[in-house]
Amino acid sequence: MELLNNALSSIKPLNEKEIKKAQGKIDNLVKPIGSLGTLEEIAAKMAGIKGEMRFKEYKKSVVIMCSDNGVVEEGVSIAPQSFTKALADNFTEGNTGVCVLANRYNSDLTIVDVGINAEMDDEKIINKKIAYGTKNMAKEAAMTREEAIKAIEVGIEIMDNLVKEGYELFGTGEVGIGNTTTSAAVISVLTGLDSDIVVGKGAGLTDGQHEHKKRVVNKAIETNKPDSRDVIDVLSKIGGFDIAGLCGCFIGAAKNRVPIVIDGVISAAAALCAYRLNPLCREFMFPSHLSEEPGAAQAMKEMKLEPMLNLKMRLGEGTGCPMAFNIIETALYTMENMASFEEASIETEDYDTEINKILDEKTANKER
Amino acid sequence: MELLNNALSSIKPLNEKEIKKAQGKIDNLVKPIGSLGTLEEIAAKMAGIKGEMRFKEYKKSVVIMCSDNGVVEEGVSIAPQSFTKALADNFTEGNTGVCVLANRYNSDLTIVDVGINAEMDDEKIINKKIAYGTKNMAKEAAMTREEAIKAIEVGIEIMDNLVKEGYELFGTGEVGIGNTTTSAAVISVLTGLDSDIVVGKGAGLTDGQHEHKKRVVNKAIETNKPDSRDVIDVLSKIGGFDIAGLCGCFIGAAKNRVPIVIDGVISAAAALCAYRLNPLCREFMFPSHLSEEPGAAQAMKEMKLEPMLNLKMRLGEGTGCPMAFNIIETALYTMENMASFEEASIETEDYDTEINKILDEKTANKER
Repeated sequence: MELLNNALSSIKPLNEKEIKKAQGKIDNLVKPIGSLGTLEEIAAKMAGIKGEMRFKEYKKSVVIMCSDNGVVEEGVSIAPQSFTKALADNFTEGNTGVCVLANRYNSDLTIVDVGINAEMDDEKIINKKIAYGTKNMAKEAAMTREEAIKAIEVGIEIMDNLVKEGYELFGTGEVGIGNTTTSAAVISVLTGLDSDIVVGKGAGLTDGQHEHKKRVVNKAIETNKPDSRDVIDVLSKIGGFDIAGLCGCFIGAAKNRVPIVIDGVISAAAALCAYRLNPLCREFMFPSHLSEEPGAAQAMKEMKLEPMLNLKMRLGEGTGCPMAFNIIETALYTMENMASFEEASIETEDYDTEINKILDEKTANKER
Repeated sequence: MELLNNALSSIKPLNEKEIKKAQGKIDNLVKPIGSLGTLEEIAAKMAGIKGEMRFKEYKKSVVIMCSDNGVVEEGVSIAPQSFTKALADNFTEGNTGVCVLANRYNSDLTIVDVGINAEMDDEKIINKKIAYGTKNMAKEAAMTREEAIKAIEVGIEIMDNLVKEGYELFGTGEVGIGNTTTSAAVISVLTGLDSDIVVGKGAGLTDGQHEHKKRVVNKAIETNKPDSRDVIDVLSKIGGFDIAGLCGCFIGAAKNRVPIVIDGVISAAAALCAYRLNPLCREFMFPSHLSEEPGAAQAMKEMKLEPMLNLKMRLGEGTGCPMAFNIIETALYTMENMASFEEASIETEDYDTEINKILDEKTANKER
């Protein structure tokens, strides 16, 4: 609890002076003001995080929290629980979507077992196992309050260590069969939205299975009655070790003043938890893509974050992060390498001159 | 006219056999079916265009059509007409947004003077000048029917030449003060939508100037009465040399069976013209970002294309294309490098087994 409390109380706002300085430089580039939209916002935000607006190829990692969920007993996923271990093992082999995308964009992966329901024997997977999966939230609390705090602290600690190793830009991923169910439950309680709005079809449920999944989410909430104002209560009763661990990553990023990218619905649920624990966490977050899982859009809306990519993805693992890394680097590259109006020998004073003359004449003609 | 007619009649559909083959491979990769969304669609479409699904770093160029618009006399842009020449000159110096983004993603630029209202003396700009800008469409037809056809054929010819030079992936850009006005007019007539819906604020009009711009678009349409079923009539009366030239690029891409990316509203207006001349042109198009100019979204909707990027950009020049090039290459890279279920030693037969067993038992319990 001390690690978590210290982290939460140590988070400071962005450097507003550097943001203003960056915005001044951006506004003087040879383009209409604001016309590079989100690329401008990203670059200015990075200046506020890093203390300067400068392009570089960052040292990057996607942190992947792997854990199992007792709620799979209720029949909420088309994939069996054994897929969690199988996919985690495949991360170390470079076989899955996130591995390939990370490789394409020169990012490492940090794979963490925070609660897989199996013995793991691959030393490339960091062993932070809290339990062999959570309990079935449809029947009882998924974990104890202490376990939830421990899982969050795993995330903070992982981030502390990665920053020490020189990593500068982070992504958040996960694998855990059943975790779109837990994420939807967490988002439902934290936003007050009905399960109808936030529960999606996961890896590919039928309509009937989808309805059943909504009922399971409702049952979990009714059974546990989590206190929506108490994030730890919500996480422990209807969350998962992966969501809690990623929540810790977002807190750890804010504590260490490093940028961190949100992936899909599980990652978004975790981001929302961190945001509720300390709203300043949001300042260090970058959304990536708009997941097909409906809860993701709702969590984003709650945090007033708008995804940069619209690719109808719903794979998880952190697959949206490497592409977002690239867009963040591109934003900085663009602001660094475009010419100013002066360098381009274009007079900004000429803006508005012609149009004002024409429109003034038109008004004069009308009045005559 | 012969070049245009021959091009239009020579366009053939995508290779459906290769698309099916690609989809079969994609569906066997270690992920839920369809879960990489648009990345899967892009890769399959590329297989249909290229005749195989294979990753490579393509030889790329953004074709930038530069021309002036007589309608600037009406006071529709905050930038003076002289900016068209000034920006075209800066393209050759590598100073502007599209130069920097193209450089970041290893793309060349092909800069074409198709109607700038100034003498150009830079040999890096291809001279295809049809006239020194169009006429003021608020008062008369912007150009003759013959000029519109000539401008389209410039685009086709440019594409023919670039393909001969070995280019394999294309973008579309432009510069031309006043061209968000002409594009809005073209999109309004071709979609039947009111100017209120399709006219945007361009480089940064005030609300009052924006209302004035809508009136100018309405006046141009009323004065010229273009026939919405006759694309050449629309382009010649209320279009621009840049839109017509880019329309030719889209036709040339389809003719040569090469992929071509749509940028913002001007590029989208041109794509819509090509689509109306031959709907098969659409099969070779890839949308990039959702422009802030409202006409772009309407043109996309008409063609049933959905942008991959949501970056609130409105700079033009082709700035959205290099990022889209990268996503297209990433889609192919991902499908090529992910493991199949078999390679990952995961049994797809295990899908549905657990959930079906659980749900069957639940049903049985209820019936009991």
